[in-house]
Parts: sequence; structure tokens; C-alpha cells
Amino acid sequence: MKLLVVGSVAFDAIETPFGKTDKILGGAATYITLASSILKVPSGIVSIVGGDFPQSDLDMLSERGINIEGIEIVKDGKTFFWSGKYHNDLNSRDTLVTEVNVLENFDPKIPDSMQDADVLLLGNLHPGVQLSVLDKMNHRPKLVILDTMNFWMDTAWDTLMQMIARTDVITINDEEARQLSGEYSLVKAAKKIHKMGPSYVIIKKGEHGALLFHDGKIFAIPALPLEDVFDPTGAGDTFAGGFAAYLAKREEFDFETMKSALIVGSAMASFAVEKFGTEKLQEIEEGEMIARIKNFKDLTTFEVEV
Amino acid sequence: MKLLVVGSVAFDAIETPFGKTDKILGGAATYITLASSILKVPSGIVSIVGGDFPQSDLDMLSERGINIEGIEIVKDGKTFFWSGKYHNDLNSRDTLVTEVNVLENFDPKIPDSMQDADVLLLGNLHPGVQLSVLDKMNHRPKLVILDTMNFWMDTAWDTLMQMIARTDVITINDEEARQLSGEYSLVKAAKKIHKMGPSYVIIKKGEHGALLFHDGKIFAIPALPLEDVFDPTGAGDTFAGGFAAYLAKREEFDFETMKSALIVGSAMASFAVEKFGTEKLQEIEEGEMIARIKNFKDLTTFEVEV
Repeated sequence: MKLLVVGSVAFDAIETPFGKTDKILGGAATYITLASSILKVPSGIVSIVGGDFPQSDLDMLSERGINIEGIEIVKDGKTFFWSGKYHNDLNSRDTLVTEVNVLENFDPKIPDSMQDADVLLLGNLHPGVQLSVLDKMNHRPKLVILDTMNFWMDTAWDTLMQMIARTDVITINDEEARQLSGEYSLVKAAKKIHKMGPSYVIIKKGEHGALLFHDGKIFAIPALPLEDVFDPTGAGDTFAGGFAAYLAKREEFDFETMKSALIVGSAMASFAVEKFGTEKLQEIEEGEMIARIKNFKDLTTFEVEV
Repeated sequence: MKLLVVGSVAFDAIETPFGKTDKILGGAATYITLASSILKVPSGIVSIVGGDFPQSDLDMLSERGINIEGIEIVKDGKTFFWSGKYHNDLNSRDTLVTEVNVLENFDPKIPDSMQDADVLLLGNLHPGVQLSVLDKMNHRPKLVILDTMNFWMDTAWDTLMQMIARTDVITINDEEARQLSGEYSLVKAAKKIHKMGPSYVIIKKGEHGALLFHDGKIFAIPALPLEDVFDPTGAGDTFAGGFAAYLAKREEFDFETMKSALIVGSAMASFAVEKFGTEKLQEIEEGEMIARIKNFKDLTTFEVEV
């Protein structure tokens, strides 16, 4: 199955305790489709960049089998730019610069070549933009996955509710799940979010792993404990990318397949943080990936005799 | 195998968003041995209480097969008392009262009937007291498990280091592991703590589960996501109790058995928080316990085809 991804393609400038970068390739759709390309799942991006965006980066995506026809290039515009500095614990960061630029007036266009996508991943953008993409599909995709954040809860609640109502799988972090539901208990939060629409709720807990809720069932996965986290940028997007791509590859959307997809997403994310930006994602080979999934198996498998 | 437990037997007065209690039965050794009694593992307590401690509580412990010969009763003394109020999220609390009372001059005495214990669990007390217990054993137990906290790192560092050097398994929380090692990464923290003595390091992360480190291997377990946490008091001690008792029952101390023990401890802890104080622990039946362990299996088991 094809995976269609709507989200930012951007420049990031990142500072961590281990070093800093100039403007490098970033953006949710970039991380998501790079993760997808590791699983050799055909994907396409709907996004917008400025005339300052390097052809070499577009070529790199294209060479990895990512359909870039849906990336609009505004010749006299500037690409979305984010700059941030991580604190020593790498769990918190300060945003130094956010230049929305061409993303300000983003009117997504879906290329004909991607209209047959069965899995649609709506990256973290204004819910109005996410809704417009869904409306522009000739058919409703078999699976709609939504990423969102607290900012849209604060500024576009009603539109976000409309978007969530048309979503199959929502991925948010624990604090956002609490804000969205008004419940502190994540079990109760997931129940309320199910009622808003999504039959699958994924709650991301960063270094503490993630939870998947569906039809009264829960699956929990720890994050792979890492000796060094080099740069957390894009970890959540990479997770979503690995997750969505695995589902597109398996062409199954039941609970058992979703569980596996969660593992694949977590494994991908554990790679992403090992180097700056998308560097590590561009290097991973399939064998490395399979080894990392086995690490998750070793990490969590047990037998108990009582 | 017998399990010997050194720790407080105490009164707690607890306030949570769901209600409050008067002085009720508490203390680390109480939670630990109650957990042990559910697995029908013979255990004994070394502790101290005042003349105000109810005979009915001593009888309850005794009837559950817990050896209480090592509980010294100071007729004209008062039992250790702690009072605390949990915040709405139940993840943080304020201590309202701490009356150390008879625990101030605790000189532990090991009854002859417990000298043959093969597993020794040193509950969270001054490391000097923990050391003295180990010194008073006629033989070194086959397994020494240590619980400690940041307070002893701040106030009794050198003694704590001596105690840790003689420990097989240490259980601490994530912040304490960071303080003890000076490392933010828990993987690096565990490596440093191994070098201090313990070949097994357990890092407790509360609602995020726990990690077990041994010889370059890691096992991670999420906490069971609960709809309601009623009272978190004693969850850590109950975890330690279920963990230690399972090892004593299986009479094996290898990595695989430690993994299972971590699951049993977590299952026990998930019960403890369902009611105030030790109430739930006094009610659990073996079947309930086995069902809860199966919940953990369902929570974490997955298959991935790549």
C-alpha cells in the first residue's frame, strides 16, 4: 500500500550538549518518509518549501523512492525554519527561532499519482489544513493517522475536534492526552479520546515508551534504553513514520499488527536520535533495523512460573 | 528459601484526592512481608515498634505466616509515624509529619529462627543499620537486596558506599540512580552502580515501570496502566517484596528469574495502590495474582514480521 504524508519539509538548526548544526534538513514529513523508505514502502509528500530549499535534498528524497510531486516550491518564498537548543537532560528544549515562512499560506495539493494512497498520515499542522487534505482525497483512505499537539488544542479546538472525529489513529504525548481529555489517568484519557472518534489511541511518553489503546485493550512498550541520546529532534515523527509505513507494508490494521507497528516505530525512533537531524535515518540498512527490533524483543520478553 | 526483611513497621496517616485515613498500619517491612505472604514464602521481620502498636496487627502478620520474633516492642516508646498528603496527580506528595520515635535508636536483633534466611532484603533505613544487620548474620545470605534513597546519599554517603559494596541487587528510583552515579543516562548510571558492587541494578520509574540491568543486558517493564490509583503509599516496598519473595520461592538468582521477579513485584505493586494502605494486600488471593501477571503478558507481548 502507498503512504501519503502531509507535513512540514523544513530547515532546522539544532544545538545539543554534543554540538550544534547550521541549517540542516528537517521537517515532520521528511522524517516520516525517510523512516518509510527504510521499510521500502512507497510514500509521497504533500508539503511546501521556498526557493531556498536545496535541489540536492529533493533529489535525495526522490532517490529513496519518495514521491515529491506534492512538494510545492515557492520560488520567491522561504522554507519553514526552526531553531532550538536542548537542555543538558535532552528532555526539554528552548525554541530559539520559528519562521513559518511559506507554510503560513500552505494550500496542500495532492498529486494524481498519490490519490490511490490507502494510508494517510496527517503530520502535525493546523487541523484546518489536515481536514482540507482529507477532503481533497478522491476516496477516503483505508486508514487515517493523525499527529497533533497542544498548540492546536489552545488555538483551534473546534476544527481539531472535527479532524479528530474523522481519524482512525491519533498519536499524541501524555501531557497532550491529558489536556485533550481533561483526565489525568491515561486509561481514562484514552477512553474519552476514543469517544471523539479514533478507535486507536497512541500515547507517546518519550524516554518512557508508548501506550496503544483499542477496544478496551492496552499494549505498552518501553523505549529502548540508550547510552547516549545525541539529538532528539524528529524522534516523534520518525516513530509515526515507522508505525504508518509498517501498517502500509503489512496491509492489515488490526490490534496485533498495530502492536508490531508500534515496535517498528520505536525502533526507528531509537535510530533517529543517534545522530544530528536525519543523518542516521539516511544510513540505516535493513539488517540493522531487524537487529534493533530483536533488541526490543529481548528487552521485554519474560516467562513467569507462579 | 526464607526471606528476612529489615525495615520499618509503622503508622501512616494518608490523604489522597479520594479520602483520608487516621493512623493505619504501614511501614516498609509490613508491605514487603505482606507481598511475600501472598506467594506463601516464609518470611520474617526485624524491626522495632512502640507500646502503642496494636497486638491485632502483630497477630495479623503472624497469622499470615510472617515470623515476628524479630520485632522489638519498646513498651514506653512510640511507633514510627508518617503522615502525607498526595497531590491531585498522585505523583507527588507533601510529608506532613515524620515522627521517628523508637526507630531513632534501632539496634536490630536477628532471631535465631531467621538466621538461616537465604534472601535478605534490607529495607530503606540508615545504611549503618543495614550494615549491622548483614554483620549479625551467622552466614552471608545467598542474596542481599538493598533498598535505599536520596536522603542517605545526602547524609551518609561513605556508609552507604560500604553497604552498596556488599549488595547483590540494588533498587532505587531514576532520580536516585542519577544522583548516585552522576550520570543522566540510566544506561550509564547502571554501569557505574555495577562498579560500586551490585551485579543487578533495578531502577524504578513509578508509573513508567522499571528497568533491570545485569552484565550488559537490560530488561524493561512498563507499569500496568491503571484507571484509578487510589493510594500510592507502599507501592515501592510492595514491589520489592514481590520481587524478593519470588526469588526466594524459585531459589534461583539468574537474569531470567530476576526478570520474572520484576513482573511479580510490579503485579503486586499494581494491587497495593488500589486501596488505602495495606488493605488490598491483605485481601488478594493467588488466582487474582496469576490473572494480573497474565495482564502483564498481554500488555507487553508482540510479534513483528519485517
